Amino acid sequence: MVKNGTLVNFASDNSAPVAPKILTALHKANAGPMPSYGNDPFTRRVEERLKEIFECDLRAYPVATGTAANVLGLSVMTPPFGAIYCHRLAHIEQDECGAPEFYTHGAKLVKLDGAGGKLQATELEVALKRSGAGNVHHVQPAVVDITQASENGTTYRPEEIAEIGLVAQKYGLGVHMDGARFANAVSFLGCAPADITWRAGVDILSFGATKNGAMGTEAVVFFNLEKAREFEYRRKRGAHLFSKMRYLSAQLDAYLTDNLWLDLAGHANRMARDAAERISAIPGAEVLYPVEANMIFARLPEVSLECLAVSDILYYRNGEESAGEVRLVTSWNTSEQDVNHLLKVIA
Amino acid sequence: MVKNGTLVNFASDNSAPVAPKILTALHKANAGPMPSYGNDPFTRRVEERLKEIFECDLRAYPVATGTAANVLGLSVMTPPFGAIYCHRLAHIEQDECGAPEFYTHGAKLVKLDGAGGKLQATELEVALKRSGAGNVHHVQPAVVDITQASENGTTYRPEEIAEIGLVAQKYGLGVHMDGARFANAVSFLGCAPADITWRAGVDILSFGATKNGAMGTEAVVFFNLEKAREFEYRRKRGAHLFSKMRYLSAQLDAYLTDNLWLDLAGHANRMARDAAERISAIPGAEVLYPVEANMIFARLPEVSLECLAVSDILYYRNGEESAGEVRLVTSWNTSEQDVNHLLKVIA
Amino acid sequence: MVKNGTLVNFASDNSAPVAPKILTALHKANAGPMPSYGNDPFTRRVEERLKEIFECDLRAYPVATGTAANVLGLSVMTPPFGAIYCHRLAHIEQDECGAPEFYTHGAKLVKLDGAGGKLQATELEVALKRSGAGNVHHVQPAVVDITQASENGTTYRPEEIAEIGLVAQKYGLGVHMDGARFANAVSFLGCAPADITWRAGVDILSFGATKNGAMGTEAVVFFNLEKAREFEYRRKRGAHLFSKMRYLSAQLDAYLTDNLWLDLAGHANRMARDAAERISAIPGAEVLYPVEANMIFARLPEVSLECLAVSDILYYRNGEESAGEVRLVTSWNTSEQDVNHLLKVIA
Amino acid sequence: MVKNGTLVNFASDNSAPVAPKILTALHKANAGPMPSYGNDPFTRRVEERLKEIFECDLRAYPVATGTAANVLGLSVMTPPFGAIYCHRLAHIEQDECGAPEFYTHGAKLVKLDGAGGKLQATELEVALKRSGAGNVHHVQPAVVDITQASENGTTYRPEEIAEIGLVAQKYGLGVHMDGARFANAVSFLGCAPADITWRAGVDILSFGATKNGAMGTEAVVFFNLEKAREFEYRRKRGAHLFSKMRYLSAQLDAYLTDNLWLDLAGHANRMARDAAERISAIPGAEVLYPVEANMIFARLPEVSLECLAVSDILYYRNGEESAGEVRLVTSWNTSEQDVNHLLKVIA
Repeated sequence: MVKNGTLVNFASDNSAPVAPKILTALHKANAGPMPSYGNDPFTRRVEERLKEIFECDLRAYPVATGTAANVLGLSVMTPPFGAIYCHRLAHIEQDECGAPEFYTHGAKLVKLDGAGGKLQATELEVALKRSGAGNVHHVQPAVVDITQASENGTTYRPEEIAEIGLVAQKYGLGVHMDGARFANAVSFLGCAPADITWRAGVDILSFGATKNGAMGTEAVVFFNLEKAREFEYRRKRGAHLFSKMRYLSAQLDAYLTDNLWLDLAGHANRMARDAAERISAIPGAEVLYPVEANMIFARLPEVSLECLAVSDILYYRNGEESAGEVRLVTSWNTSEQDVNHLLKVIA
Repeated sequence: MVKNGTLVNFASDNSAPVAPKILTALHKANAGPMPSYGNDPFTRRVEERLKEIFECDLRAYPVATGTAANVLGLSVMTPPFGAIYCHRLAHIEQDECGAPEFYTHGAKLVKLDGAGGKLQATELEVALKRSGAGNVHHVQPAVVDITQASENGTTYRPEEIAEIGLVAQKYGLGVHMDGARFANAVSFLGCAPADITWRAGVDILSFGATKNGAMGTEAVVFFNLEKAREFEYRRKRGAHLFSKMRYLSAQLDAYLTDNLWLDLAGHANRMARDAAERISAIPGAEVLYPVEANMIFARLPEVSLECLAVSDILYYRNGEESAGEVRLVTSWNTSEQDVNHLLKVIA
Repeated sequence: MVKNGTLVNFASDNSAPVAPKILTALHKANAGPMPSYGNDPFTRRVEERLKEIFECDLRAYPVATGTAANVLGLSVMTPPFGAIYCHRLAHIEQDECGAPEFYTHGAKLVKLDGAGGKLQATELEVALKRSGAGNVHHVQPAVVDITQASENGTTYRPEEIAEIGLVAQKYGLGVHMDGARFANAVSFLGCAPADITWRAGVDILSFGATKNGAMGTEAVVFFNLEKAREFEYRRKRGAHLFSKMRYLSAQLDAYLTDNLWLDLAGHANRMARDAAERISAIPGAEVLYPVEANMIFARLPEVSLECLAVSDILYYRNGEESAGEVRLVTSWNTSEQDVNHLLKVIA
Repeated sequence: MVKNGTLVNFASDNSAPVAPKILTALHKANAGPMPSYGNDPFTRRVEERLKEIFECDLRAYPVATGTAANVLGLSVMTPPFGAIYCHRLAHIEQDECGAPEFYTHGAKLVKLDGAGGKLQATELEVALKRSGAGNVHHVQPAVVDITQASENGTTYRPEEIAEIGLVAQKYGLGVHMDGARFANAVSFLGCAPADITWRAGVDILSFGATKNGAMGTEAVVFFNLEKAREFEYRRKRGAHLFSKMRYLSAQLDAYLTDNLWLDLAGHANRMARDAAERISAIPGAEVLYPVEANMIFARLPEVSLECLAVSDILYYRNGEESAGEVRLVTSWNTSEQDVNHLLKVIA
């Protein structure tokens, strides 16, 4: 539950405003008539920019919400009698009100555990061995979904993803990556985007932008081109094909220009890391997971929690109130003053 | 098919840019953090403005595409074994790639005919008498859908809708209005918005804005409050709940302020009416339907068609090329020069 | 509506009892335990018998209702954004309460007309040319469905089906045959079953038995083996995989033994033809379609209708009462006395 | 996996043949034409018999498979954005290839644990408190499903069900009972059928017959009459409405006559109890759950497993081979010789 303060946002990167360069891009896109439904130069340019960034051929489709990106991507890889293997904390399982089931026409999400919100290749293989593949009484393994950065603010290393990719390949599963915070992961890892996607076996990526400074746009990126055409029908049928597509694409275009996406994420990451270090130093406080993106999960002393609760800071309490855990999320526009204020309140 | 010119748009109101006041509103909405998913002041204000405009209590939900508005609205009124009665030209039947079937989990669209793209109450009743209601072998009538203004650029008069509303009531159907061009209809009719909606029996309205100067926002308006709560789950599950909702709402807020919505539509309507009158005067040309919104359907002499085809004007040829019919759509930013240019080309 | 008499059935072949040899077969199948879910010798034998009858390799799956056979067959050939082309009178369109839409997750049925309840290849091609194939705004043509014998009691000749098959192939569609009365068609045509199925381009056949003397069993026959495996998951998921499958298969096994299926259908056909000839001879009566299976559609003089209405004969009035049309269906156990009685009543 | 012996069935009650009285009933139902789709005297009589047995008004619908009974029953209580709470071992979760998700259009199954295959009211309440009810980001609790007798061969006592019923009522959930082995439970408990169904809060019951001597028939029993009408459309649309319904109903009619259902189940239960007692006496063997129906789960010494594996006995090994656990199921036609033979093999 969001504690309803008014000024300082550590509740969600969703609550942040739009980065100025992205807002400006909307103006540039507003000059006169332009073909609708994606037949515009902005949409084409986004795909070209992503090809450069990922160093490969690909198809990229803008959609407006992260859930749309996830479930449309999953829908082309999962038959209605299929199973999607994911972490028990995955956004697709926890926070999408059954959208994956809707878009796949009833596929089953099989939940796995894993430290720090990350799936492990070995655990996945154990589950797949028990899956009942080939037996008509059971849903059939179709996709493994991983979240990068994870729901706990950790990031998969390239080799961790590659191991999952190999297991997926061995058992004939597609690999889907929920990259709502993909920029934060790349910024943290300092790796080539290709290393944590197609080179590691990822077929389809939800390339997030909304949480990282855009207004409402994500790209569904197909490294596996085979399923791309089907996606186009499913996007329209899901009511996610925008007539004035140029405005979604213009946001992405700006986002991908001059490394803006990494700059915004890098700032958010720094603010989180800085705050986490200072929280760790508070007696009785504990940061629960390595801070490898823009989220901090922390256990705070009771007095800190009380001060936070009456402050002007927006944040989340995790689970039951008594648990004493908070989630603090930074964003592209979190300032050092914000962090200082947070620390003053809880320290 | 859009004839690919570059300068003058008579192809679609979807190809038009965003009205300046609406773009400006996005800047105003961009000040600092704000609660996500609709818990923001803009979203609340949109609902209040709509209550004033429609002179009644209602619930209003912003979504980003017209198809989303239509199919989410239909989904709460139509059981999976239901039937939606609509005009054979209806957008939901012709242009949404099965989205109504997807969102209703397989309801059947029953197509009716009707002059000028409009359903008639008497035809509807004839169809409902033959519908097999109550017989388990047949899908069950659930909703009648009407488009205001219609796909042929005509508008239903308040009494025409009221008659349809009475038939719907008699047979236990809900009434859905696809108002992608609702503003154009109200502007043409000069009536109270209430007179062509809830007072005439409409339960749910797709209140369009995108075609009339917005970037990508529509309001699903519930006059029948009963189904509103269910809508909220279905919207999220359809991946149409925006985290940064304020930007959808801010567009609507500006759109509804100081009659902007009617001003924009009024301009488009005037341009269409003006062009239609002048087209009618061309020897051998014929305007096919009364021009009561922002669309002209015309049969043009062969020489006009040829000139148009090689011009810099964007427009649609209807059906097979040989038919000699064109669709010309004006928008909030169609200028008198555009109309003059069009007439010069085809006259 | 069934006129509720008690004794003489011309209402439906569904109202007939089970043929004695088929009932007897259930006893033979009842000896002791047997593996469930189709791993029994009866199920294997049915497939073998069908291979012989159709002179080709195939896969065959027993299900218990004609609607299940149709919609499960269609489901493996139709994507959710697909369109199924069928006659406007087709059982899948008229009488299955949206089951095809349910099992295909919302595909659209596109209705075509055609004399005597039969599609024509030329009409199909005209429709496919206008279909919007390749355009994301429209559902995509996926399957053509034909009913053999048709809903009007006529049968497609092998060359008529082959022409439809060629059009389907040209446009990339699958061909589905609803063969609820397949035996009646084969008996009438005297052709090889292969000639009106795979040799003419049919991919999947609903091979009916229930209407022709079985208790409740049909075989879904795959001439196109590619989609067969997927069918098995869809059948289970549709709740149509029987644990005690042997009893469905035993019915089919008996049905296919010693030409029982053709004997039963031949008798029904003869009774229909005989009755039709005698009805034609009644002054003022008219048989509306060639009687090429076990159904007669006739327009009767008012006095005949009145006599029929108060008689002990079960039959259907078509459409509105005033129309004066009746449907009379014979079955494997229609007797000459039944026909004599019918004629006595209406003559 | 079924160990493929040929003679002695302890694999499943599904592998058993049909009880003679039920087979005989099919003959009685075969006299002449009869209205189809359930408008026959057998279907009406089944409902009347069930009213007597359950001492209340109700609606009862025959369907042919247990999965169909379960998922059609669930479908009328669960919105597409709903959640079904069930035991992790529940048939609907484990063995129906996603049929519940299909028929509910994507509802989520929430798995709970519980000793002996039984849900506990307290555990259910804990889960419901955490469910996110009312929050659009999460699926909404709709139904609790319990299996009586359970998947582990135990039975819920009336008061256990009543406690679950109270929790369900408190949180606004419907209660569904999978009674594939309902007869075994009633026979064991010796209670009134009403005491473990509507008096304890059950809304809809899958009243099983197939596993207990029928050929393929179950009754979906509505104690909550409100949803019954909708069921009829969903049954047809699921392709589960039988034209020759009389044969499904005749089976149930015989099953419910003169306590046949309880006699058959009572015999199966006795055979199981007898075998379990004797297994318990084998050194190194352990019966894992109270044997309160017709299933025994046992851990056997290695030598017993080896003897069993090479014997002529059909049975199931649970989970991985190494686990050393077997499932043994008795049925209405398990004989004392069968039990003696089993014990001889493993002892």
